[in-house]
Amino acid sequence: MTPSSHGRGALRRRLSAGCGGALLAGVLIAGQAPAPPSVAARYAEAAESLRTAGLRSETAYSLLARLTAGGPRLTGSTGAGAAVELTRAMMAELGFETWLEPIMVQHWVRGAETAAVVKPGGAGLSSLRITALGNSVPTPEAGIAAPIVEIRSFDELRARGPAVKGKIVFFNVPMDPRPMDTFQGYGAAVPYRSQGASEAARAGAAAVLVRSVTLRTDDFPHAGMVAYDPDLPRIPAAAVSTRGADALSALLAKGGPVEVKLVLGCRELGPTPSANVVGQIRGSEKPDEIVVLGGHLDSWDLGTGAHDDGAGCIQAIEALRLIKELDPKPRRTVRAVMYMNEEFGASGGRDYAAAPRRAGERHIAALESDRGAFLPVGFGLGGTPQQFARLRTWAEPLLAPSGILWVRPGGAGADTGPLAAAGAVLMAFIPDSQKYFDVHHSGLDVLASVHPRELELGAITMAIMAYVAAQEGI
Amino acid sequence: MTPSSHGRGALRRRLSAGCGGALLAGVLIAGQAPAPPSVAARYAEAAESLRTAGLRSETAYSLLARLTAGGPRLTGSTGAGAAVELTRAMMAELGFETWLEPIMVQHWVRGAETAAVVKPGGAGLSSLRITALGNSVPTPEAGIAAPIVEIRSFDELRARGPAVKGKIVFFNVPMDPRPMDTFQGYGAAVPYRSQGASEAARAGAAAVLVRSVTLRTDDFPHAGMVAYDPDLPRIPAAAVSTRGADALSALLAKGGPVEVKLVLGCRELGPTPSANVVGQIRGSEKPDEIVVLGGHLDSWDLGTGAHDDGAGCIQAIEALRLIKELDPKPRRTVRAVMYMNEEFGASGGRDYAAAPRRAGERHIAALESDRGAFLPVGFGLGGTPQQFARLRTWAEPLLAPSGILWVRPGGAGADTGPLAAAGAVLMAFIPDSQKYFDVHHSGLDVLASVHPRELELGAITMAIMAYVAAQEGI
Repeated sequence: MTPSSHGRGALRRRLSAGCGGALLAGVLIAGQAPAPPSVAARYAEAAESLRTAGLRSETAYSLLARLTAGGPRLTGSTGAGAAVELTRAMMAELGFETWLEPIMVQHWVRGAETAAVVKPGGAGLSSLRITALGNSVPTPEAGIAAPIVEIRSFDELRARGPAVKGKIVFFNVPMDPRPMDTFQGYGAAVPYRSQGASEAARAGAAAVLVRSVTLRTDDFPHAGMVAYDPDLPRIPAAAVSTRGADALSALLAKGGPVEVKLVLGCRELGPTPSANVVGQIRGSEKPDEIVVLGGHLDSWDLGTGAHDDGAGCIQAIEALRLIKELDPKPRRTVRAVMYMNEEFGASGGRDYAAAPRRAGERHIAALESDRGAFLPVGFGLGGTPQQFARLRTWAEPLLAPSGILWVRPGGAGADTGPLAAAGAVLMAFIPDSQKYFDVHHSGLDVLASVHPRELELGAITMAIMAYVAAQEGI
Repeated sequence: MTPSSHGRGALRRRLSAGCGGALLAGVLIAGQAPAPPSVAARYAEAAESLRTAGLRSETAYSLLARLTAGGPRLTGSTGAGAAVELTRAMMAELGFETWLEPIMVQHWVRGAETAAVVKPGGAGLSSLRITALGNSVPTPEAGIAAPIVEIRSFDELRARGPAVKGKIVFFNVPMDPRPMDTFQGYGAAVPYRSQGASEAARAGAAAVLVRSVTLRTDDFPHAGMVAYDPDLPRIPAAAVSTRGADALSALLAKGGPVEVKLVLGCRELGPTPSANVVGQIRGSEKPDEIVVLGGHLDSWDLGTGAHDDGAGCIQAIEALRLIKELDPKPRRTVRAVMYMNEEFGASGGRDYAAAPRRAGERHIAALESDRGAFLPVGFGLGGTPQQFARLRTWAEPLLAPSGILWVRPGGAGADTGPLAAAGAVLMAFIPDSQKYFDVHHSGLDVLASVHPRELELGAITMAIMAYVAAQEGI
């Protein structure tokens, strides 16, 4: 470790010296004053140092192991509360200034949940792998037993009209596997999960079963929110695994009635206190100008939210750790925020932006990580066209050695969005999306599905962006 | 499936019409003859069709499941022989013209292999997870019990000189985790595995134990070849898991002698007949001009060679399948070759290039996939600077929608190298390397470590390159 520690020490001294950048990158041409080195040239060594320091260890993975060992972190739950304390403690151990910002969150709890094919009997498909959608109302305790109607689109639902009255609507709309960006296929399928219950209720359905939104064929149901139209009856809503959906569809294709008994014991317990968790390295020159990094601390409850979004929280913490190791006194404040309650409506991000404490602060950039901990391949940057153009001149060359192959306009995130109105430039690192929906909102979203180097590379790219922004402004 | 089949049919008709390209991409400007569309423009729709057809199914994964179900394919083994028959049968089922090209290969077999710490007793480390290196000579049946000397570099070995005489040299040189391209760290560590035995024998050592070449800390030993210097005694050589290496190192750090008993029952059975496996779609206009795709069919024997290199073989087969579905009559021949015996010296590639059958053939391009089935991110292309520049004009825009973010000079492969001398332009698709050495040559290289979409994307990018090369030449 000696050579590299030495290298970082030397780099730190040069960075502290302020004008040292010219030594790093300036080229002297005889009889001519050197051109001032570009931002990219001045920070090339710092970016390299952040990258090699990150890759040398599996620190982010160790921190994520601690977080996920606490179990799921469904908003409002005991697990989420413990994660608030744990992540604050982690950041305090690393020497960050930390505090909690109390907020109120929804507290929905899962109960018994089963779906059994009761007709035809002996169909070889007695039990379906299901999970209640978040926010769903329960069934009566005895369940709802009703015929199933398979529906492949909202158009088909409208066309079937009264045929679904009193029945369980089975939305069987697979994710389209063709787009490279799997978020495209996700976006097209997810309305059946979020709005299907109210659309079916409009036609008089008794409940809905929705095909899980994943490209894999397996036995894992994938959760997610159902959003009820306030003007329509609330009917119970559950996701069924893709293999279960295929089996149910095959059974229906044989003709003859298929009846399912659905039992959901979930319920809403009302508002409960929780908190956003904040840790920071205070800026040495402009402490009130802030670069904020973050992810959401709450998760779904079938796995342990390793990718979604334990990874984003831990990457923010690890990015601060890497920055602190490189330069304990950045010019502007670098802050990590673990937003609460993203999965039930992203209130944590709104509450953070609206908190009274924000009055004396100016967030110059807000970087969100909430697309899983897979291989980082791109970066989305917001701001005005001028800001984007300027950021890109240094972001592209400084991020490329860490595997970032493109920088494009973008950067919006569910939790950072509210900060844009106050002038923050939004940023988001974009990992490869091929595998994200395999695990998303399911029992597969556990530590074993995260790779230490991929997780760390996300933290490294976040650290590079945040550090240069903290030193140079936007 | 109807709309897409229709789309492919329409595309096929336009491609067959020859001049149809202008319809796809030409833009008419009033009073001006349209510029002839570029290669990239003329094949944009074909590339899109290959990509969506591939992503719609998990065909490559199904084929790889069949191949790996047959177990390991160590060169010369029964498993390798069965794989010859199986891959030929797969290609015949897909309607390709197939044949075998007999070759002779080495046949080395693993036997009992154990390593036990016999001194100090009660050290809490009785047994090490080891595996014989390929080509290793055995120990005497009773094993070799000798003190261990930990060595961190060849320089240190030379400095220790006579101190290692009669002992077991333990090369404990970890892979450097800092380079993004993990092949760099691999390249630096692997000489201890391939040449360590002879270097240690030069100093009079009795055997070598080599730290497994992986970035993970786990219990899986990773195999690989040992190459003996013909002028030095051959001593037994085995790899030890990284966790075993760390434990052994910690034990040695306590001071006092550490003695290990190593038993290796491996042996060489002499030359045995085997074959390269060939399948092709014959060119309709220039059948003797050939674009060859391939990987190596033999594997190490601790896993089932899913990534290394079952994936490369299956991607070549799947690329041909996708091409045939798009256009059953490409202008030039498109050929898939499963090279045998890469792991024991790459003789299959040399034998293929030197076979009498090659006399009437002209290989214009040779594309190898032998870097695992992870996410494709780049493409290496060889040839003259002029050929590279021309290829790049269409390769970059046609591959980008399938996730290929860069095209650079390169493309050399262990099995395709010999074809370059005969004028073939070498090509290689480059998947992300972050996870490759986790599984490489170990018991972790099994189907479960391969992702269907990542595997398929490799086949898709290979199909795009091969199809355009077959239509347009190089």
